Amino acid sequence: MRIISIDPGYERVGIAILEKETSSSKEILLYSDCFQTDKKDSFETRLKFIGEELEKLIKEYKPKALAIESLFFNSNQKTALKVSEAKGVIKYMALAQGLGITEFTPLQIKIAITGYGRSDKNQVTTMLPHLINIEKKVKYDDEYDAIAIGLTYFACNPNK
Amino acid sequence: MRIISIDPGYERVGIAILEKETSSSKEILLYSDCFQTDKKDSFETRLKFIGEELEKLIKEYKPKALAIESLFFNSNQKTALKVSEAKGVIKYMALAQGLGITEFTPLQIKIAITGYGRSDKNQVTTMLPHLINIEKKVKYDDEYDAIAIGLTYFACNPNK
Repeated sequence: MRIISIDPGYERVGIAILEKETSSSKEILLYSDCFQTDKKDSFETRLKFIGEELEKLIKEYKPKALAIESLFFNSNQKTALKVSEAKGVIKYMALAQGLGITEFTPLQIKIAITGYGRSDKNQVTTMLPHLINIEKKVKYDDEYDAIAIGLTYFACNPNK
Repeated sequence: MRIISIDPGYERVGIAILEKETSSSKEILLYSDCFQTDKKDSFETRLKFIGEELEKLIKEYKPKALAIESLFFNSNQKTALKVSEAKGVIKYMALAQGLGITEFTPLQIKIAITGYGRSDKNQVTTMLPHLINIEKKVKYDDEYDAIAIGLTYFACNPNK
């Protein structure tokens, strides 16, 4: 089973592609990155960039499902609406390519990675290298978040 | 100039296609409808339906631009996030087909249609038949809203 997992955004999009060969084997990280859109571009151009880059990745790696983080309201409501628009683009692109979609809340992700729902971002990030081999240097938290979402998918779907 | 104007949503999407032949001619309503998604379907299936229906319409009518209403926070924040996801799908589909996108606030729409920023929904709807010939029977407000957004586009872009 191969999946793509995404930490959604319109400035930075964390992306990981994970594979698990059998239900008892360890997850393998095939790819991870953080797309960054250009601040000088219009919001529309940034949405288009996200959709196009994602389309290329899905066509190259052919994952069967998308795992994506649920969005909750934070202090900045305007940002939340923009991230939701980006999320719409990401989900539509996955649906158009035939992927199933599962959303995970931050609570589900924390429990899956650290076993504890009140763990902070650092605890999640620190735990990740114990769970999966990350060979590349990760620059942005968004990329770690995407890897965590992917691992949560397999933790919640143990037979895949 | 031919445009598509949309009142975004995930349950109902108001859509209109308007044309204006010269800067001095009156706008013509070529098409209007209200897509309704099935409540029994998952949110993802509804997003996919909206994107696919919109793609068909854009391919059939070949509009050059999309006019869409800006979203503001209402009392239901969860709804606002879902409408934003649908808006992301709609905007991405327009961008992928090469359309330019303009957003209009409810205030801009009210002023363009009634000349008065504090007019209510009824005043906007009552004004529409005086501005454009609407031959079909309109069932939902969302369709009227889409027509109003389309007329706002031409009011704000008089040379198109």
